[in-house]
Amino acid sequence: MNTVTVTASGTYDVLIGHGILPELGGHIKTLLPPTQKIAVVTDETVAALYAKPVLATLTNAGLTPHIYTLTPGETSKNSTVYLSLLNRLAEDGFTRADCIVALGGGVVGDLAGFTAATFLRGIPYIQVPTTLLAMVDSSVGGKTAIDLPHGKNLAGAFYQPTLVLIDTDTLDTLPQEIFQDGMAEVIKYGMLNSPRLLDQLLNDNITQELPTIITTCVSIKRDVVEQDEFDTGRRMLLNLGHTVGHAIEKLSNYTIPHGQAVAIGMTIDTRAAVAKHLCPPDCLHMLDNLLDRYSLPNRTDYSAEAIFQAAQGDKKRRGGDISIVTPRSLGHSELMQIPVEDLLHWIKLGVSS
Amino acid sequence: MNTVTVTASGTYDVLIGHGILPELGGHIKTLLPPTQKIAVVTDETVAALYAKPVLATLTNAGLTPHIYTLTPGETSKNSTVYLSLLNRLAEDGFTRADCIVALGGGVVGDLAGFTAATFLRGIPYIQVPTTLLAMVDSSVGGKTAIDLPHGKNLAGAFYQPTLVLIDTDTLDTLPQEIFQDGMAEVIKYGMLNSPRLLDQLLNDNITQELPTIITTCVSIKRDVVEQDEFDTGRRMLLNLGHTVGHAIEKLSNYTIPHGQAVAIGMTIDTRAAVAKHLCPPDCLHMLDNLLDRYSLPNRTDYSAEAIFQAAQGDKKRRGGDISIVTPRSLGHSELMQIPVEDLLHWIKLGVSS
Repeated sequence: MNTVTVTASGTYDVLIGHGILPELGGHIKTLLPPTQKIAVVTDETVAALYAKPVLATLTNAGLTPHIYTLTPGETSKNSTVYLSLLNRLAEDGFTRADCIVALGGGVVGDLAGFTAATFLRGIPYIQVPTTLLAMVDSSVGGKTAIDLPHGKNLAGAFYQPTLVLIDTDTLDTLPQEIFQDGMAEVIKYGMLNSPRLLDQLLNDNITQELPTIITTCVSIKRDVVEQDEFDTGRRMLLNLGHTVGHAIEKLSNYTIPHGQAVAIGMTIDTRAAVAKHLCPPDCLHMLDNLLDRYSLPNRTDYSAEAIFQAAQGDKKRRGGDISIVTPRSLGHSELMQIPVEDLLHWIKLGVSS
Repeated sequence: MNTVTVTASGTYDVLIGHGILPELGGHIKTLLPPTQKIAVVTDETVAALYAKPVLATLTNAGLTPHIYTLTPGETSKNSTVYLSLLNRLAEDGFTRADCIVALGGGVVGDLAGFTAATFLRGIPYIQVPTTLLAMVDSSVGGKTAIDLPHGKNLAGAFYQPTLVLIDTDTLDTLPQEIFQDGMAEVIKYGMLNSPRLLDQLLNDNITQELPTIITTCVSIKRDVVEQDEFDTGRRMLLNLGHTVGHAIEKLSNYTIPHGQAVAIGMTIDTRAAVAKHLCPPDCLHMLDNLLDRYSLPNRTDYSAEAIFQAAQGDKKRRGGDISIVTPRSLGHSELMQIPVEDLLHWIKLGVSS
């Protein structure tokens, strides 16, 4: 088992290993001794696979689990579901000593995390991600959120978990296309800060190396989060491909999955960077090869104008400027501030060049 | 003008003085130079009195104000109004560089603060309290919240403002009964930590001394908040009379105002403390005299059992214990942990003795 320790508002461990799910109850008793009630927030798909072992480890540790099961999918990440979770916790008599476990993918993690951040002004929560995307991205770093009608993740909080427990065995039950979706974020970490990871992803059989690869991704994310927990500067580096990606998700009414949208977004950002001579063409070749290997898309039918319009409400805007991330060399990207007006030109370069 | 500086997650000033409202725009430009848009959250009553000067100072400073006006009263502090504020900010294109101004009493401050805490995972906000209660209590310390059907303040966040601007002239337009309601919290600060304030409140004509009295209250609150921003221990001291007070508000379906409920709650806590020989009877006499002087109630028709039941969901519960605050001598109170079961006996002593 690998451990990555994150030091932010609170210090917490990310545990990564095969078959570690049954240890969950014991960890909670150690980390949060007064906890009695556990709200396991999950969705129907994940509940069918993992509710039983999770309830067993919690009960064996002397805890009282309550299971709150959501409809799977991004459409659950809304204010109605968020309020229903708050109200269930109140009805079930949860106190600040009790705890939420987020068991599932990013939607469950973001919703459960925002609920934990705001119920009684904050109760502890533990991330148990079961998708690759959630393991390498949303479960670590304390970003929690819900979507609003005007856009994705428009309401939320920075609120760090008490523990992140990643049992890589849960990836065995993940449908191939959802696994591939997560690979887009894995590739992103390589593009951001690891030529070695890019090489590994292109040439190795990654199935045997998942705990190591996930540990690499989590470590890169940890380093960035520790420098800028509240996303006022360096943390925006993690948004390679995301300004465009979020816009594409929005344009598709969230029918295009996050990873696919980020894959397209990374391609647009990298093409634009090459066109502007900000990075050599080998970055784009590497990205193309990797997206091809992991069956991820590299183009979209949405126009640059449509993407630009949809990106207007992006959180990465501050006043008249927007932060974009641009590859600068193989396995190295950097943040750049541009006026919002110039974003349209950037996207046009990325879409057409 | 008096300044109290609060050092918590962020450091900010509380400015207290006569006629300082027109300085608001200038302070925002100094503290938040990139800010362009300002969402002024207020209610109809306050808007009729102060929207004009507030919009003038903001416009004069080159800012673009948007005014969001709520229906006055505690019933606005709900999830529907909260979501409508989030959606308005999204519609109006607010970014993380923009800012919310909470202009009004505690309801406006709590709602606007929680909206600021969670829109785009947090944008700056400024408290401009116009009621005595909000000036001495809710505007300082970063507690933001909305009510849920199961109870008051059940969802919220700890999120510090960038500035608190208290123009004591706004108290001139406050109806007498709302001013009296705020006096309950002022008396609370005397009971907690200031024999001198108790004496001043009993013997002086306070109208001339309001800036000084408010500064004393804010300073006491600041000292407690700095020791325990996230309300895990010492900050609960500020809850003298509040466990019972919140229960009474809830039982009355929020028709009994906060200050009156706290006045009753303080009386019950003090009577119980005297009955248990935790404090001398002069504390109770002083409290009775002060509540009488400021036309605040000291008794309730609700039974101890009903109050106990309503207090069950209190945030101050942690697992099986609850924190209560008990006067120990004149102008000095302390925190005490008791098992939840013993709370009924405590309330019974307070109601009947």
